[in-house]
This record gives sequence, C-alpha cells and structure tokens, in this order.
Amino acid sequence: MGMAVTVLVLLVQGAWGQDTQPASPAAIAEKAQAGVEATQTAINTVWTLLAAFLVFFMQAGFAMVETGFTRAKNAANIMMKNLMDFSFGSIAFFVVGYGLMFGASNGGFFGTDKFLLAHADVATGDGLWQMAFWLFQIVFAATAATIVSGSMAERTKFGAYIAYSIVISLVIYPISGHWIWNADGWLAKLGFHDFAGSTVVHSVGGWAALAGAAILGPRIGKYVKVNGKTRAKAIPGHSITLGALGVFILWFGWFGFNPGSTTAGMNLSIATIAVTTNLAAAAGAVAAMCTAWLHFGKPDTSMALNGALAGLVAITAPCAVVSPTAAVIIGLVAGVVVVLSVEVIDKILHIDDPVGAVSVHMVCGVLGTLMVGLFASPAYIAASGVACEPGLFYGGGLKQLSVQAAGIVAVGGWVLVTAGSMFLLLKKVNLLRVSREEELRGLDIGEHGMEGYNGFQIFVTE
Amino acid sequence: MGMAVTVLVLLVQGAWGQDTQPASPAAIAEKAQAGVEATQTAINTVWTLLAAFLVFFMQAGFAMVETGFTRAKNAANIMMKNLMDFSFGSIAFFVVGYGLMFGASNGGFFGTDKFLLAHADVATGDGLWQMAFWLFQIVFAATAATIVSGSMAERTKFGAYIAYSIVISLVIYPISGHWIWNADGWLAKLGFHDFAGSTVVHSVGGWAALAGAAILGPRIGKYVKVNGKTRAKAIPGHSITLGALGVFILWFGWFGFNPGSTTAGMNLSIATIAVTTNLAAAAGAVAAMCTAWLHFGKPDTSMALNGALAGLVAITAPCAVVSPTAAVIIGLVAGVVVVLSVEVIDKILHIDDPVGAVSVHMVCGVLGTLMVGLFASPAYIAASGVACEPGLFYGGGLKQLSVQAAGIVAVGGWVLVTAGSMFLLLKKVNLLRVSREEELRGLDIGEHGMEGYNGFQIFVTE
Amino acid sequence: MGMAVTVLVLLVQGAWGQDTQPASPAAIAEKAQAGVEATQTAINTVWTLLAAFLVFFMQAGFAMVETGFTRAKNAANIMMKNLMDFSFGSIAFFVVGYGLMFGASNGGFFGTDKFLLAHADVATGDGLWQMAFWLFQIVFAATAATIVSGSMAERTKFGAYIAYSIVISLVIYPISGHWIWNADGWLAKLGFHDFAGSTVVHSVGGWAALAGAAILGPRIGKYVKVNGKTRAKAIPGHSITLGALGVFILWFGWFGFNPGSTTAGMNLSIATIAVTTNLAAAAGAVAAMCTAWLHFGKPDTSMALNGALAGLVAITAPCAVVSPTAAVIIGLVAGVVVVLSVEVIDKILHIDDPVGAVSVHMVCGVLGTLMVGLFASPAYIAASGVACEPGLFYGGGLKQLSVQAAGIVAVGGWVLVTAGSMFLLLKKVNLLRVSREEELRGLDIGEHGMEGYNGFQIFVTE
Repeated sequence: MGMAVTVLVLLVQGAWGQDTQPASPAAIAEKAQAGVEATQTAINTVWTLLAAFLVFFMQAGFAMVETGFTRAKNAANIMMKNLMDFSFGSIAFFVVGYGLMFGASNGGFFGTDKFLLAHADVATGDGLWQMAFWLFQIVFAATAATIVSGSMAERTKFGAYIAYSIVISLVIYPISGHWIWNADGWLAKLGFHDFAGSTVVHSVGGWAALAGAAILGPRIGKYVKVNGKTRAKAIPGHSITLGALGVFILWFGWFGFNPGSTTAGMNLSIATIAVTTNLAAAAGAVAAMCTAWLHFGKPDTSMALNGALAGLVAITAPCAVVSPTAAVIIGLVAGVVVVLSVEVIDKILHIDDPVGAVSVHMVCGVLGTLMVGLFASPAYIAASGVACEPGLFYGGGLKQLSVQAAGIVAVGGWVLVTAGSMFLLLKKVNLLRVSREEELRGLDIGEHGMEGYNGFQIFVTE
Repeated sequence: MGMAVTVLVLLVQGAWGQDTQPASPAAIAEKAQAGVEATQTAINTVWTLLAAFLVFFMQAGFAMVETGFTRAKNAANIMMKNLMDFSFGSIAFFVVGYGLMFGASNGGFFGTDKFLLAHADVATGDGLWQMAFWLFQIVFAATAATIVSGSMAERTKFGAYIAYSIVISLVIYPISGHWIWNADGWLAKLGFHDFAGSTVVHSVGGWAALAGAAILGPRIGKYVKVNGKTRAKAIPGHSITLGALGVFILWFGWFGFNPGSTTAGMNLSIATIAVTTNLAAAAGAVAAMCTAWLHFGKPDTSMALNGALAGLVAITAPCAVVSPTAAVIIGLVAGVVVVLSVEVIDKILHIDDPVGAVSVHMVCGVLGTLMVGLFASPAYIAASGVACEPGLFYGGGLKQLSVQAAGIVAVGGWVLVTAGSMFLLLKKVNLLRVSREEELRGLDIGEHGMEGYNGFQIFVTE
Repeated sequence: MGMAVTVLVLLVQGAWGQDTQPASPAAIAEKAQAGVEATQTAINTVWTLLAAFLVFFMQAGFAMVETGFTRAKNAANIMMKNLMDFSFGSIAFFVVGYGLMFGASNGGFFGTDKFLLAHADVATGDGLWQMAFWLFQIVFAATAATIVSGSMAERTKFGAYIAYSIVISLVIYPISGHWIWNADGWLAKLGFHDFAGSTVVHSVGGWAALAGAAILGPRIGKYVKVNGKTRAKAIPGHSITLGALGVFILWFGWFGFNPGSTTAGMNLSIATIAVTTNLAAAAGAVAAMCTAWLHFGKPDTSMALNGALAGLVAITAPCAVVSPTAAVIIGLVAGVVVVLSVEVIDKILHIDDPVGAVSVHMVCGVLGTLMVGLFASPAYIAASGVACEPGLFYGGGLKQLSVQAAGIVAVGGWVLVTAGSMFLLLKKVNLLRVSREEELRGLDIGEHGMEGYNGFQIFVTE
C-alpha cells in the first residue's frame, strides 16, 4: 500500500500532470473533459462494487434467518448450505452461468459467450468495468440459490442441496435472467420491467423453493391427523435473535440490491430507490404485524420479520418507477399478503416451508412484479431513465400489466419444470431426503459429523 | 439491469456525447464544467446514501446490545421492538416528522412544509438529492426512538412502546431537531453546534429513556430491601456475545453516523471525522475498562463495551471540530464518566436501566455537547467549514460553551416534559407496564405468544 | 446537518460559483480542471474510508469466529479481547506505530516521524487525505493483533493479552510493515510484492499466533496419552452459527481489505481485485469441503469455513496481479492446504490452536505470498499499476519468487524472535497463563467476574 500511494500519484499525474510548457485553453479543456469521463467511470465502478459487497453480505442474512427459524440440531447443516451455495454458485456462474445470462443472445433465449470472464480485457477501462458488473451479477445469482435452502430446511441431503445449487446457478437462473436482463432477451424486448429482480431473483428462487418443498414432503411431525383431519403443528425456530439479526442484515443488504441495480452512481435515482425500498420494508413490517395481531390475537415477531422481507421483495421490481407513497402502499399490501400466504401454504396446502420462503419470495415476488403494471409513474420512470410504460393507476391502461403477467407465467413455468424435474429425479434415485433417524437426530451429526452447539443442553425434538 | 447498462451509456453520452462537428474550446470547457458539477453531486449523493445505509444497520446493533444485556425470556419482544420502532418511525417521519424538522420554520420552533416528501421533485437533480438527504434523516430519527427501548426493557407493554415510538418520531425528535439542524432554528441561530447529534439524537433518546425508566419503575427483583437499606441486584444479560456483536455493529455504523453527517463526500473533513470518531471510541473502551478494573477489581466486559459506546456518543457533537488528540481525551473522559454514571443511576438513584442507555446516551450526549465548547479548534473548524466558535482551550472563552449549555438545558427540558407526560399518561391509564405474572414469565409469551429460544433449556429467573 | 447543507453549497460555489462577468474559455477550462482534481481526491478519500469501515467490521468477524469455535465459558473473555486489542491498538498505533511504519525511513528499517498524526495538516487537502490513509492503516494493524487471540484462546491471562496487543501494534507489526509498505523499506526496494498483506498482516499475526500457542502450551484435556502415544482430542466450539456469521462478516470485510488497498477509487483495478478475492474465497471453501469429505468421510462445516478464510488470506498478496482463473487455482490450493495444515499442527506437532489461526493466517499467508511469484500476470500488473515482476508461470522465471521467499523468511524470523521473546518473558514471570482452576471453570469468571451466557444451562467441560 505504500506503493499504492505512488500509483495514485502516477495516475493523477498521468491524467493532468503539470506540463513544462503552458497548455492551450483547448488542451486544458480536453484534458478536463477526459478527467470528467474517467471520474464518472470511477464513481460508477465504486458504487457498483460497494452495492455488490452489500448484496454479498445478504448471504449472512439468509443464513441467520434460516437457522433462527429452524431447530438447533440442524444449525451446522444450515450454515454449511449457505456457505457452499454461494461458493459453488460463484464458480458455476464464473464458468458458465454468466455467459448464458449476459452473453450474445441466441434468439433471445440464452447467451453464447462471455464465459470465464474472457470478455473482460483488463487493459481497457471497459474490461475493468465488466469485472465490477460481473461481481454484481454473481452476488445476485447466489441470492436466488439461497432462497431454496429455507423451504427445504431440516430434511434435505447435503449432497442434493449442493447439486441443486450448482444447477440453479449454472442454468436455471441465468436462462430466465437472460430473457429479462439481457437487452436482447425476449421478455426484455416485450417490455417486461423488473428493475432489481422481484421475478428474476426472488420468484425464481421462490418457485424452486415451492417445487422443492412440495416434492420433498413435510418434516416429520409437522402435520398430524386428528380425527381424520390434517392439522399443522408449529415447529418453532431455535433463535429469534439470530432470525431478527438476519432480517436486519437483509434489509441492510437490500440497499445494495435495489439502488445498486442502477449499476451507476451517476444515476441519481439511486436516492429515490433507496427511499422506496426503505418505506416498503417498513410498511410491510407494520402491515404484517397488524394482520398477525388481528388474526392470532398477538403480534407475532416472526410474522413481522417476514413482513419486512415481503415489503422488500415486493418493491424490488418497481423500486425505480414508483413514488414513495406508492411504495408505502405496495409494502402494506405485501405485509398483509405474506401473512395470509403463510397460512394458506401451511394450513390448507400443507406444504411445509419452515421459513416462509415461498410466501416471501415467490408470492411477494409475483406481487411486486404486478405492482409495476399498477403504480409505475411517468415522473419516476423519466427520473430513473428505465424502459417502462406507465401503470394502470397512472393512465397507462393494461399494457404494462399484461407484459408483467406474461413474464411471471413464463418464468414460473420455466422454473417449476426445470427445478421440479431435478428434484423429482433426485427423489427417484433416493438422494433427496435424509433418513428418518437422521432427521430426528438432526442433520448436523448425520451430514457433517458435528454439532452446531456444544456445551448447551439442547432438547432434540421432532 | 441489462437495461441499466443502456441507461448508463445514455447518461454518459448525454453528458459529453461525441459530436459530429468539432466543438469549440469554450464548448468543451463548458461541457467539462457541467460534467464536474454532475459528478460532484453524484459523489455527495453516493456518500450520503452509503452513510445512511450504515446508520440503518445500527438498528441491528441496538437490537443485539439490548437483547444481549437482558434476559432470554424477553428476546423476541426486544427484537420486535427494535424492528417496529424503525418501521413505524419511518412511516411517521415520512408523513409528519421530516416536515416538522426541516420544513420552512415557524419562528425557529417547528417546520411547516415538506411533508410526505412532497418537496422532492424527481424531475430535478435537487429533488433527487432531497431524497438522499431524507433517507439520511429518517435513519437518524429512528436512532433516537430506539435508545429508549433499552432503558425500559423487560417490563413495558408492547403497545405502549409502539405508541411512544410513533410520538417521538412524529413530534418530539423533529421539533428539538428543528431548533438545531434547521438553519432557521432558534438554537442554530444562537450558534449551538452539534455536528452529528450528541444532543439532537443521543441525549433526546437518553432523556426520554430516563423519564421512561423512572416512571415505569424497576424490574421485579432489581432492588431489594436489606436491613432497611435498598440494595441493587445485578440482573445479568443472557448473551454477552450478542451484546458485543451489537457494539461492533454500532461502532461500524457510527462511521456512517458521524462522517456521513457532512452529507457531502466532497467535504474532505469526512476523513478527520472518521479518525476522531474511531479514537474516541477506542479511548472510551480503554478508560471504562480501567475504571471498572479499579472499581470492581476486574475488567468487566459490559463496562468496556459501554465505554466504547460512551466515547462514540461523546465525540458525536464535536467530531468535526476537534483534533485527534482531543478526541482521545474526550473518549477517555466519557469512558470514566459512563462507569460512574451507571453506578450512580443504579446504586444511588435506584433507576433501573437494564442496558445503561441513560448513562451512554444522555450523560455522554451532554458531555460531548459541552466538549465542543472546550476543544473546538480553529483549524478543524475551518477544515470542516462548519459554524462554530473556538472552545475554551483554544482561546474562545466561554462563548461557545454557554451556547452549548443553553441548548442542553432547552432540549433536556423539552424531552423530559413531553416524553414524561406521555409516559405518565400511559401509566395512568394502565397501559405502560405488563402484569407481574407476565414480567416473571417473560414478555415473549405474554406480548407475542412465542418464545425467543426453543430447544434450549432456559432458566426463567426474576 | 442543516448547516452541512449550507457548507456543501459554499464548497460547490467555491469551486465554480457563477461569476457576474462572463469567464474566458481558458478560465472555464482551468476551473473545470481544478474541479476534476478535487473530485478525484474526493473519490479516493470516500473509497478509502468506506474500505476502512469494512475492514474495521472484520473485528466483529474475528470475535464471532473465535468465540464460535471455542467454549461458552470463555465467551465474555473472547469478546473483551477482541474489543480491547482494537482499542489499545488504535491508541498505540496513533502514538507510535504509524510513525514507525510510514514515517521517513531510517535505512529502510523503521520510520522516524509522523507520530500522533502530527503530519496531517488539516488546512491542506493532502493533510485530510493523510487522515483517511491513517484510518485505513490502523484497521489493518488491528487485524494483525487480533489473529493471535484465536490461537491462544481459552487459557491466556487477559493482562498478558493486552500487553501483547500493545506491543504488536506499537512495534512488531509497524516495523516489518515498514520494510514492505513504506516505499523506502528494504524489502520494498528489493521488489517484494504483497498487495494487501498476506505477509504484512496475516502471516505477521500468524507467526505470532504460532509462537504464542507453542509457548503457552495446550488447553487442559486437549492431548491425552493413550498407551504411551499422544492423542489429540477435539474440543468443539460452542456455536457454529456465530462462527459462520463471523466468516461471512470477514468475507464481507475482505472486500474492503483487498480492493481498498488501492487506496484509490480512481484505480479501476478495484473491480478485478474484488473479483479475484471473491473467487479465491469460494474456491477455498469448495476445496476444503472436498478435502475434509475425503479425509474425514463427512463435509465438516468448520473446515469449509476455514477454507473460505484460507482462500481469502492466500489471495491477499496476489489479488491485484493475477487473473480470475488463477485466483480460483490459488483458492483451491489454499483450501486443500489449510485442512492438511490443521491436521499436521494438531495431530503431529501437537500445538493447540483452537481456531486454526496458524493454518489460516500464517500457512496460507506464506502460500499466498509465494503465489505472486508463480501467477503474477503482466496484463494484470499493468492494469493495477503496481510494481511487480511476472511470475514463473508467466515467463518471469524465479526472480519475483525468490524475492517473495526472502521476504517471507525475514518477516517470519522477525516476528518469531520478537513475539516469541515477549511470550517467553511473560511466561517466565508467570503472567501468561491462567491457573488450572480458572481454566477449568472458564475465564469469564476468573478474568472478568461475569459470565458470557446467563439463564441457559451450560455444561462446563474440560
């Protein structure tokens, strides 16, 4: 770093070193102009990297939420899953996934180059920028993978989880991502708008989470027959403090996720996006708390935490095109919907989703994607400079709303078919679910030969 | 985000697209000048947003400190309070609070417009900047609310806490904040200097914490009569690891709180402020550790953790106007004072403040505000460009010190009267404190119908 | 902050206020040029500060890893060590350490001025920049100190640890740091390249950790004689969730550590460095998991976590000069090596290192430093602008590799001798290790008069 200072001086001198002969006004102006250009590229790079770091940190948030809401006997397994999905995902996305998503498009369906970062020539400013953009994309890809971990928690073989993580980062996520975030993707060309990924990231993860939880079946003891009727039993998580810490970390990281998706610090709508993101999260927590209070008679902490996440997921698509007031409304709706969805999935559909991942990420991801078609405001569209039609409530009719709906169906179908097939195949060859004995004892011992907590007395329950 | 890249290109071209005809030197120069201006606005926006994100993350720190220093049976309640005060606070500050604080001043006492972000016209660069500034302010407002949570922990009804959170974010904090941080506020015009909020944020929270804890009364079992004398019993917290994690998170977030309060990355005194902030925190921990070692015979970990926070609170007002060496001195004084204050409040005043919030935030907030009047240095005042007179030790006499003292008294009086009235009212209608049974059993079950920890054997103690 | 807005306006006007008379093209161009210069300094300052904040947060990561991997009965002691090494280290580095490291060089061996930040004249832009650079350096110094804490955990007297922390921050770290990161240091002049500190930070900490653990001796019960042969017993940590949280925090903070070491946001190779850092960490986790799976029959979570850290330490020296593919290879090697190293140190050398600090920081620090000599690529060297010869695999022969080896030996010798002497001296005067009774009962009670966890039933084991 002593050397780094020297480098800095050289760079600065390179840009506008004092010449010995007086420069002409034109030369000074051109040098200043070049300096402005270099500086703006630097701001965009710095902003995109810092946002990527925040999104990376969301991995810690997901890990804490998942372990907090599940039992102590599976804590080491959950930590391992959250570490390894990001690690394998990083390598898989580096080798293949990024190219499928952002490479030159084959008919709008998948990319065909930019594998192994081969396109990022570091001798050029653009090549260095490609590196920053790549980092931002890999932390996004990992988020989609990690969502599934929660819904399949406490009963999935570790090997199956790793296989799944690789497949989603390698193929599933990049291909539907290509449709939407590659400028030549077929949904992008239709005008589908998903600014930061309610659909691209969250509902992709959420649909896979749904397929996984349904195919895997519930945890032992989750549903019991009483007088011929199936009743859902609550299996409380082992640490609401870690779960809440996870939600705070996710909220913090979301400030990278949404505003960072400009990938440009020069685009001042980053401020608006940060505001809409925060207000929707706050409103989601408020609405979920009130709904739970009315519904259960007490304000359940887990529901309020999921309400904040619901608001965050729902604002992710529309964050750049809606007003702060609309963001509050979107958050309120998401907060109500997530509580009802958790109830329906658990008590009516009898799908066992230990952390509510399907409700938070799939249901609210779909909801948020539709909200673009309702609340997109011309003023905010113009301010952020994105391609989007005004929503139904802003005089745009059903145009944007129908494109949004089409994209939701297409992505949902794609993920249900591919992720579903994979989970069915893993189930068929008996690699998907741990044994009954292992599930009862906890996956920490069975899968990893260790325990998450030592020295505490822990009750191992069904 | 595929689209975002396009946007970036358009923006950049908008700023200095290659014209087909050669531009005159004057045109190039003017374009460069406009580019510089846009770039500097972007840096200020990026800096302010990132600082706001860090300050947001302090909510996680407050939650971890409060729960770490209290008992396991109340952990879910404490998580809920820390989530919901920020959530309700965000909405309340959006609707009313911000306008009262930063709107056009009515005689220096409160603001009268800028409600609901109506003033932030996103068609203009200034409107987008107002969004960033607003986000920075809302995370500050939430900090003041959250401080009270700690002193009233383990015995306050959840509904009362929510009511209180809304009132402080809606009215109490914005009005005294108006006096100081609105350029037309009456204390601002007197010359009161509180750079990042030792008074505006911390002592507002701290005075309310004092009123709340005093009116609420101590936890059951906290004070026992032995031979006619009241003796304070220690009620140890359930997790020093979470408490320490919280302090690290707070220290980390404070780098957004203090340096971010320039709300300008172009103001290079952000570097000085980061240095003084870090040194005061370090010195605070050192001094509190030594004081505790001398006083108790052993270096108590909680005291050292509170010492770091004491240093941080005390440097918050003077961080931009004092030298690094002065920052060390301020931190050392705060570290000693916080230990003595905790002892006095607990063992002499018999006010039960489970986490030491009054000592850390009110006492050290007052201390730090006074330190401006002692240590403000002309060189540092000039470097940061703030309005402040030199302190007593730098030849400024008592001028700044008396203004600081006046502001402390005014704000203390305002908060004690308003927050005190509210808590007395809540007490009168019997909404303030949970029942004896609920307190003994823990608020998690009583208020939220759940437990913070499951599967561990927890001793529920008085 | 109300005032801060005014300041911003003044600053901006100062830079290019509207003149009443029309300016000449030359005047506009010069003003724009000055604006570019100020803006670039601001970006570099903002970047360096934000990176420093991230590195600071690594203290929380180290604390969580250390406590997660050790027993509950020592948790308060471990929190205290991690708080106080940073606090005392900050003061020590402020008073003496920084000057020894970055002051004017005495023959390439140590610095002789810049004590107490006296060189940072805040009336100048450079003085303010020096503040930012200083902050970045102090958070690095603290990292080296903190590494030792882990290897000596659960049996070292708190006073000895404090003494050690002060000495390493005051003298040991700054002097070897001077050799490498001061442009006039003797190793710098030889051409030794250690971009972000595999040697300067990690192996300095790691060698001291080795000396400390060896001199201190193993924890009671760690090694047992069975039929005349010494057998290592595993002493599992009390919370893998906190340990994993710590690793996520460290990974997050490393994005400040490595890319931040440009200390220049204008140097776009920050993007490349972030990419190589992330890929090496991911590859490290993958390789360690696979190695553990093959070796132990199950994928051990702690080993995978240490694998990620191993990849991070190993990429720290070469991060700016190697390609993404090389980063993956370096990470894979580090992941394998760290598992083998942990086994050798524990089961063959019988040195008790509770958290694997020697393997992660010393062994992988040495490894990473050597990797520069193998993988340094001319294209990446040019892009980052650092002084480094191409590595063996890029046609550079053994030149860079031999310099790297020389630096490793010199720094290793320096630290082993100085830190070793200190620990031997502390042992001699019986200040190094706690009593057998205290060790069995836990250091929380013995050293700090408190417990880390209350209300939980904890088994105090050997």
